Amino acid sequence: MPYELYYWNGLQGRGEFVRLALEEAGAPYVDVVRGSEDEGLGDAAMMALLNSKTEPSIPFAPPFLKDGDLIVSHTANILLYLGPKIGLAPETDQRYVVHGLQLTIADMVTEVHDTHHPIASGQYYEDQKAPAKARATDFLAHRLPKFMHYFERVLAQNPHGAQHLVGERLTYVDLSMFQLIEGLHYAFPRATARFASHYPRLAALRKAVAARPNIAAYLASDRRLPFNETGIFRHYPELDSAGH
Amino acid sequence: MPYELYYWNGLQGRGEFVRLALEEAGAPYVDVVRGSEDEGLGDAAMMALLNSKTEPSIPFAPPFLKDGDLIVSHTANILLYLGPKIGLAPETDQRYVVHGLQLTIADMVTEVHDTHHPIASGQYYEDQKAPAKARATDFLAHRLPKFMHYFERVLAQNPHGAQHLVGERLTYVDLSMFQLIEGLHYAFPRATARFASHYPRLAALRKAVAARPNIAAYLASDRRLPFNETGIFRHYPELDSAGH
Repeated sequence: MPYELYYWNGLQGRGEFVRLALEEAGAPYVDVVRGSEDEGLGDAAMMALLNSKTEPSIPFAPPFLKDGDLIVSHTANILLYLGPKIGLAPETDQRYVVHGLQLTIADMVTEVHDTHHPIASGQYYEDQKAPAKARATDFLAHRLPKFMHYFERVLAQNPHGAQHLVGERLTYVDLSMFQLIEGLHYAFPRATARFASHYPRLAALRKAVAARPNIAAYLASDRRLPFNETGIFRHYPELDSAGH
Repeated sequence: MPYELYYWNGLQGRGEFVRLALEEAGAPYVDVVRGSEDEGLGDAAMMALLNSKTEPSIPFAPPFLKDGDLIVSHTANILLYLGPKIGLAPETDQRYVVHGLQLTIADMVTEVHDTHHPIASGQYYEDQKAPAKARATDFLAHRLPKFMHYFERVLAQNPHGAQHLVGERLTYVDLSMFQLIEGLHYAFPRATARFASHYPRLAALRKAVAARPNIAAYLASDRRLPFNETGIFRHYPELDSAGH
C-alpha cells in the first residue's frame, strides 16, 4: 500500500521535504490533496481527517503521513519514521543525530516563515510589512549566517567527509538541506549571492543532491511545483538585502 | 552512568521539559551547567562542547543530552530518545504519535517565545515592545485557543480515556503538557483566568501531573527554579489581556 502524504495543494511548503525523500527512494506514495475527488482524494479527504471527531491521533496541521492506520504528523517526525524504511537513515542511534539536524532545519524554516509573517500567521503579509522588514533584516544579518555557519561546521566535522551531514551515506537530512538552500536562494537572491564562497561545503552538497538521478528527474517533473508567494520561501524583493 | 543534561542555568526554559521526565522516572542525571567548575561541570563544560572543532554531532543550541558518546539535541528529540528507556513512552509505533504531539508543543513554545521577541531573538524585549504587543494580542486571540482546543480534542478522542494524551499510561508528553499549561498561566494570568472552564480535560491533566509523588517532590525542591523573565514564559503584564 502506498504511503499517503497529506499537504496543502498549490505550494511546496513543508510537504516538499517529505516529497524529496520519497522521490529519492522511489517509494510509492499518493499526494492525497493533489488527487481527484472522484477517487476519494483531494482537499476534502484531508479536511475530513483534520476535523475527525473519532480519530485518536489527529494532527494539528499538515503535513502528515498515513501508513495504514498510523498517522504521523510533523515534517521531521515523518522523515524520522520513513528514514530507515526507505533507506535514507541509519538504524543505529545515529538516527537521533540526523533527526536533531532535521529539527534545526525545521526551526530555521519557521524563522524564514516569520520573516514575512512576524506578527500573525493568519493575516496577510501586506498587513505586517513594517515588522516583516525588521525581522527579515535581523534574519539576514544574524540568523541566516548563524544557522549556515553551523551547518557548514557539521559538514566540516563529519569524520567520514563533507559529502554528507551525517555518516558516509546519503540521509534524508541531506535532501532537506538542499531544499532549505534552494528556498533561501529563491527568497533572498541578493543576500545569498555569495553563498558558495561563504559556505563551500553546503554549496557542494546542494549541487550533489540536485544531480542525483531520482532528484533530477523529480525536479524536472510537473510534480515539483515552482516556489511561489504562498509557500514558506517567498521572494519579496523589499525583504531582501545585500549579503555579508 | 548518569545522563548528562546541558542547558542554560538560571531559568527553566526548554530544559525543563526534559527535567520533568527525568524526575518523574527517577532517572539518574547531572544538570551539567548547574554543577561546579571544580568537577569539570558548569557553563564552561557546555561551551566547550558547543564550540568543539572535532565533535561530529555538535548541537546548534541547548538543550542537549549526552549519553556516553551520543549527543542528542532538541527537547523533543531528547524525550523521544529517553522515553522508552525510562518507561515514559510506548515502544510501538505509537511513539511517533507521542512525538508528533511533543513537536506541536515545541511549536507552541516557540510562539510563546515570539510574543516577547517577535523581531529579533538577540535583542532585548524592551527594544521590540510594540510588535511584541501586536504579536501577543494575536497569540492570545487566535493561536492559544487554536492550540488548546486541539489538545483538548486529543484528550477527548483518546479511546483509553482523557487521563492521558496517548494511550492508557503516562507518557512524557503528559508531563510536557503540564509544563506548557503552567507556563501559560504564569505568563498570561488574565488570558488564562477561565482556562479550566474552557479546557476541563487539560486542567484535570495539569492537576493530576502536579499530584504525582515524584513531580510534587521535584516541584517542592530547589532544583525547580521559579519562572522568571529570562525564560520562555515571561510575565509582562502589558502583553496579557482578558481571555475569551
